Amino acid sequence: MEFRSDNVAGVAEEIMAAIAAANMDTASAYGDDEITQALDLAYSNLFETSVRVFPVLTGTVANALSASLLSPPWGAVLAEAESHIYQDECGAPEFFTGGAKIIPLLSRGGKIPPQELRHRLAIGGQGFVHASQPSAFSLTQSSESGAVYTPEEVAELAAIAKESGLGVHMDGARFANALAALNTENQSTSPADITWRAGVDVLSFGATKNGALGAEAVILFRTDLAEEMSFRHKRAGQLASKMRYISTQLAAYIEDGLWLRLADHANRLCGALAQGLGAISGVVINSYGGTNELFVELPGEMVIALRQEGFKFYDWPETIPAVAGRRCTIRLVTRHDMTKSEVEGLITAVKRLAV
Amino acid sequence: MEFRSDNVAGVAEEIMAAIAAANMDTASAYGDDEITQALDLAYSNLFETSVRVFPVLTGTVANALSASLLSPPWGAVLAEAESHIYQDECGAPEFFTGGAKIIPLLSRGGKIPPQELRHRLAIGGQGFVHASQPSAFSLTQSSESGAVYTPEEVAELAAIAKESGLGVHMDGARFANALAALNTENQSTSPADITWRAGVDVLSFGATKNGALGAEAVILFRTDLAEEMSFRHKRAGQLASKMRYISTQLAAYIEDGLWLRLADHANRLCGALAQGLGAISGVVINSYGGTNELFVELPGEMVIALRQEGFKFYDWPETIPAVAGRRCTIRLVTRHDMTKSEVEGLITAVKRLAV
Amino acid sequence: MEFRSDNVAGVAEEIMAAIAAANMDTASAYGDDEITQALDLAYSNLFETSVRVFPVLTGTVANALSASLLSPPWGAVLAEAESHIYQDECGAPEFFTGGAKIIPLLSRGGKIPPQELRHRLAIGGQGFVHASQPSAFSLTQSSESGAVYTPEEVAELAAIAKESGLGVHMDGARFANALAALNTENQSTSPADITWRAGVDVLSFGATKNGALGAEAVILFRTDLAEEMSFRHKRAGQLASKMRYISTQLAAYIEDGLWLRLADHANRLCGALAQGLGAISGVVINSYGGTNELFVELPGEMVIALRQEGFKFYDWPETIPAVAGRRCTIRLVTRHDMTKSEVEGLITAVKRLAV
Amino acid sequence: MEFRSDNVAGVAEEIMAAIAAANMDTASAYGDDEITQALDLAYSNLFETSVRVFPVLTGTVANALSASLLSPPWGAVLAEAESHIYQDECGAPEFFTGGAKIIPLLSRGGKIPPQELRHRLAIGGQGFVHASQPSAFSLTQSSESGAVYTPEEVAELAAIAKESGLGVHMDGARFANALAALNTENQSTSPADITWRAGVDVLSFGATKNGALGAEAVILFRTDLAEEMSFRHKRAGQLASKMRYISTQLAAYIEDGLWLRLADHANRLCGALAQGLGAISGVVINSYGGTNELFVELPGEMVIALRQEGFKFYDWPETIPAVAGRRCTIRLVTRHDMTKSEVEGLITAVKRLAV
Repeated sequence: MEFRSDNVAGVAEEIMAAIAAANMDTASAYGDDEITQALDLAYSNLFETSVRVFPVLTGTVANALSASLLSPPWGAVLAEAESHIYQDECGAPEFFTGGAKIIPLLSRGGKIPPQELRHRLAIGGQGFVHASQPSAFSLTQSSESGAVYTPEEVAELAAIAKESGLGVHMDGARFANALAALNTENQSTSPADITWRAGVDVLSFGATKNGALGAEAVILFRTDLAEEMSFRHKRAGQLASKMRYISTQLAAYIEDGLWLRLADHANRLCGALAQGLGAISGVVINSYGGTNELFVELPGEMVIALRQEGFKFYDWPETIPAVAGRRCTIRLVTRHDMTKSEVEGLITAVKRLAV
Repeated sequence: MEFRSDNVAGVAEEIMAAIAAANMDTASAYGDDEITQALDLAYSNLFETSVRVFPVLTGTVANALSASLLSPPWGAVLAEAESHIYQDECGAPEFFTGGAKIIPLLSRGGKIPPQELRHRLAIGGQGFVHASQPSAFSLTQSSESGAVYTPEEVAELAAIAKESGLGVHMDGARFANALAALNTENQSTSPADITWRAGVDVLSFGATKNGALGAEAVILFRTDLAEEMSFRHKRAGQLASKMRYISTQLAAYIEDGLWLRLADHANRLCGALAQGLGAISGVVINSYGGTNELFVELPGEMVIALRQEGFKFYDWPETIPAVAGRRCTIRLVTRHDMTKSEVEGLITAVKRLAV
Repeated sequence: MEFRSDNVAGVAEEIMAAIAAANMDTASAYGDDEITQALDLAYSNLFETSVRVFPVLTGTVANALSASLLSPPWGAVLAEAESHIYQDECGAPEFFTGGAKIIPLLSRGGKIPPQELRHRLAIGGQGFVHASQPSAFSLTQSSESGAVYTPEEVAELAAIAKESGLGVHMDGARFANALAALNTENQSTSPADITWRAGVDVLSFGATKNGALGAEAVILFRTDLAEEMSFRHKRAGQLASKMRYISTQLAAYIEDGLWLRLADHANRLCGALAQGLGAISGVVINSYGGTNELFVELPGEMVIALRQEGFKFYDWPETIPAVAGRRCTIRLVTRHDMTKSEVEGLITAVKRLAV
Repeated sequence: MEFRSDNVAGVAEEIMAAIAAANMDTASAYGDDEITQALDLAYSNLFETSVRVFPVLTGTVANALSASLLSPPWGAVLAEAESHIYQDECGAPEFFTGGAKIIPLLSRGGKIPPQELRHRLAIGGQGFVHASQPSAFSLTQSSESGAVYTPEEVAELAAIAKESGLGVHMDGARFANALAALNTENQSTSPADITWRAGVDVLSFGATKNGALGAEAVILFRTDLAEEMSFRHKRAGQLASKMRYISTQLAAYIEDGLWLRLADHANRLCGALAQGLGAISGVVINSYGGTNELFVELPGEMVIALRQEGFKFYDWPETIPAVAGRRCTIRLVTRHDMTKSEVEGLITAVKRLAV
């Protein structure tokens, strides 16, 4: 009945077990514990290169801190107009960067087209002292509308950004879902392929939506940023005294492929939902990129009826609430801890209402 | 030969005389001098209401300080996409506000249509904790493209803003030109009519472009903001120790209508230019609002030729330089210290080239 | 063997159980869940007045956000020179306030004397536009050296601050230890007595050091600050998507007096340590306020020997490391999850070395 | 009658003439004019090294921008407790740096002793992530109490700062007075000797107090900071559109030694005052360093009587107003435009009152 967000999910049992296991004896505070100290190596292995990992509490912090590493206060961060970093953080990126401007880019099919990035850079005023200086490019993987950038797409955008000297940030709040989506049908895209190999400098690596209790990480592929980051991280109040309990989530999350299994489960449920709903007359799939988000257009009456039956989801955009007599779009999100019967329940209900 | 900007103008002789006159004996520092102390009264008379005047060095500071009074760090300032406050201050508004977001609004004919403001407010997320909170509306009088808002237009926009609880700021870098333009042909619009009577709370009052040496003012119609402003003003480094030399410019500027005479002179020259150029075949007036700015479309070859003859002006936008084989737009600006023969010289040259 | 800090402690079993219990089914994100929604009432009951509770990840955030509520960017926060808010946050209070100055106050016996606060206010330049404006007073309960302010002491300081219009903040990272210390020997000081009844406006309420996994709260006795706080809280990246897991810690922490039992346990162990060490020749108790912190002066040789035996603790201040041939001060901290035998082990070792 | 400050002075006639001379024809805006463009060379000659000059309106801005170049937001600037940068800018340094902490150092005889700087660095927590990182050292030449650092003294302090990796800033609001004081009696200290040769990286170069209308400059001896500075300068609203009128003051100020003649005049008058007052019974010279500031201790009755006779000056500190029955300290400042008879008038009055 609950399709609002993957944020409403619980914690995966493996991660709860890891937290319990970390709760033995005492441990050094402020990240000097063994669990935290082991993160750099574990994630370096995962990403097949030397990385530095900074655990943080929220995606807001991950994005805002990342932006602050790549843009000075007089800089500009180019990002999709629908992205969290542009419009969902109540000014956090501006706060953490000390006043950078986030420049909204228009997407097509949920992704930023290379020519849009090129155009924005062309008119961005680099070197012109009156303009906030384009300094970073941020893309969301998977994007707000559930689209997934291929390694080639990331690489093309990153290359354009880097030609102009911009740093490249990836908001990976749903990084696992994106990677899992890229790896259906015997493909083999690695975490490295869609990040540093494609030109990403800094990654907001999400775990919370996909099974953690509350743990995200800023992953630095540019390890030269680590010293500055250590101060920014502390100053932002992210150096938790009992860091081990956050770190252990991040460790367990990637152990034995847990993160991809959880994401794959959610993705498959969403795939089933897309297939089921898409086959129903009057229902149009507006956006589905193979991850765990699905945007569906329905008659307003049906939206209202579904809600009355107890199904929970968001109208999209939320500022345009569903009304009878008009076709409306809703967002449906599947989760790591969702069951197949929940998905089937929704399909059944829509079928019934569609008759 | 010089049509780049009114910023290239010199200082009006009356203002130079006022500076010399201020240079007598000693005077209290940091604005406690008699000249500065008299500004509030002089401008209250000018605006027919009780105002507080804060002299500042630049329009950048005037706009950024104004924004900081009306928007918290987590706020958003709605402003035209072409406005200085959105794109020409290298992040100063973000800096002075502590991180507010400037939301770009699209204009039509150089002015923000009421429906655009209404739409942005509708989707602005007021009360939604994830969104930078729309807190202020800023309009430019005259606008970047030289358009002038009538009192009724200001009032309509301000009313929409105020319904949603926003403060209203006017960027009056060319306020004198706008007012002079509203007062041709026996009209009688007062400074009050296009500001506080129409709902403006805070005005960036420009003098530098129109004859001062270096003096702008933030004028508070909401005098309850004055105490906070006094600290922001000092903290921004705007409390000049020898304030009298800035204040005397602001005093002389409005004495005996000097400011409007200077603006009217520039406006009339621009009107002559518009008339003269508009009559030439192949020349199209793209934007002219009765002030001292004129946007003209010409063949690229002509633009290049004019420049070779020594005429100075900007391609518009500057990021699209004129090239042969394409029609191009240039901006022409007249000044308080410009002569009729300069205008005639340009008209003559265009005529000759147009043949 | 571990006396470095209460930050090295584990999580109390009741709190681990609460986290597990919260991990049932889905729950609304971003604090709209039932557990979070119930916090205001639970803490209002605890404090016997209407409060608003904002869960945060760290004490750094709690202090910095609190300061930002009480001081404008041009303000000054008066705080003890040894306090976290002055010297242990890597600039977080300056960051979150947008540039307020933290003015260091000198303490005596670990507490700020009223005359010191009066003196600083007298020379603080309130109303003088060149000075950062004294806007808030922050005191730490228990203080950095383990001293505890009585209700009367808090009230006297708060009254002085309020006479000058300052807001009053209490850093309660060890609030439970302070309250437990005030309630030995049949006293009955309530949480209200040392906070709002004594004039405190905003409290950083610590739980992490005393048994939580990672949970602190900003508690607003001035509920008029709640709306502003909701935006500051989000903007600081503290609105966790799965807030329920932080909130449940804060709920369990105060249920059935758990927090005071845990603190009392740590305090008693520290009392035993103070008594045991104080009786040993050559050992001087430098500072002990009845909480879980103890500052002891010993011969440098003994400090070195203890460390070689595996005892862990900090030299105090850390910038003055213990050396042989000089008396040195060390800090010893007891914990909610410490055993009596650990304390006895240290006393025994010191006794042996003292011979 | 006016001994309050050199800020109350008028503008030197040479500088007024330069402003008038700059007011010819049009000139490129925003510092692209010829006068501004020539400043780098003129000041490079003056300082015998390649420098970059950024004109600003006030000393507040000069200091705050300088600090922002040398300290990150999580940094600390070590400066004298009485200095402007610590206590007279209403938070401007914190604002411009994005939240750096200014650490107050204690002076002796008006100057910071090397051991005080060493001590602060020793306890400053460099590399310790919880501490604002000591990043810059700022000294005032001449200091708040009129003391002048010799080249050797500057060099010793700067060397200590640099050993720890700090940048060195000099607040030269009265740089001319300091240099003139160092060059009485056939000495030959150059501007270079007390700045970059002694280790200074960035100089706030004052002109306003010593004869300019309103012009200060940030002078970069580390020219690698110029690019960043150009954006900070614009973002702070210091890129005046009609920059030529500020730049011309800075050009005229150092032409043909004007600045040193003006400073020498003020210094000599102060010397005469010190000599005259010092010879009067009951009058004690508290602080006099050879510049244009003099701190004198007198009976409170005499202070009150002088004020009644119309003499203007500040009690020092201002927070301790003079009262009868107690000896009090006042500050006397001489100016470039002061006459010998003004000084004699004060000496005569004190003599009379002292009888």
